[in-house]
Amino acid sequence: MNTPINLKEKSAKLDEYWSPRVLGELDDSYYAKIAKLKGSLAWHSHDEEDELFIVIDGQLKIEMKDQTVELSAGDMYIVPKGVMHNPIAEEECSVFIFEKKETKHTGNTETGKTRSIEEQLRSI
Amino acid sequence: MNTPINLKEKSAKLDEYWSPRVLGELDDSYYAKIAKLKGSLAWHSHDEEDELFIVIDGQLKIEMKDQTVELSAGDMYIVPKGVMHNPIAEEECSVFIFEKKETKHTGNTETGKTRSIEEQLRSI
Repeated sequence: MNTPINLKEKSAKLDEYWSPRVLGELDDSYYAKIAKLKGSLAWHSHDEEDELFIVIDGQLKIEMKDQTVELSAGDMYIVPKGVMHNPIAEEECSVFIFEKKETKHTGNTETGKTRSIEEQLRSI
Repeated sequence: MNTPINLKEKSAKLDEYWSPRVLGELDDSYYAKIAKLKGSLAWHSHDEEDELFIVIDGQLKIEMKDQTVELSAGDMYIVPKGVMHNPIAEEECSVFIFEKKETKHTGNTETGKTRSIEEQLRSI
């Protein structure tokens, strides 16, 4: 049975930055995730997948080649497939992420912050 | 060029209850939408599509046959495909909705509140 999930409560339970956790799935093909961010991730892109962000708390900057967007709590932004981007949180920030199950959060770039889907599926 | 979208600002511009508006699309197959709700919609289901809600402002009750969930601002809930449900907002409430492009917001039930996708695509 599905239960309601409070996004702020879930993000408060995260004990590691840049380590998204799955909250639910849609149509067997997408994951809704929550992540707590601080610092910068890594330049990367997702060749085949758009990626939707909604900032829950704090502020998130997404650097791209052609522009940088600055997102505050309540802001939504979709990073289009194929666009190189680098998320930066100068202060701690929490975000809701919606993306295909196969999307890797560091895209084609393997970094120390890359997390397997098994790690992301651990319950919180 | 994509631009950030503030969900509360968008919902404040809606001039009709139960008339979702498209904010963006993901992977050519999903729409992110915003809607302002008051009262009750209609019992309906979506045979082939899960439906994700995040309450932005106010409170939303979703009646289903086996349970009723009560959502407050910041709560996420996924109504599984095939589940009969009826959203009820006792006071005005605004919600972020994520669903397949072909999902009809009143499902298989045609009501006075049913809106065509052309109506939902009008910019706000």
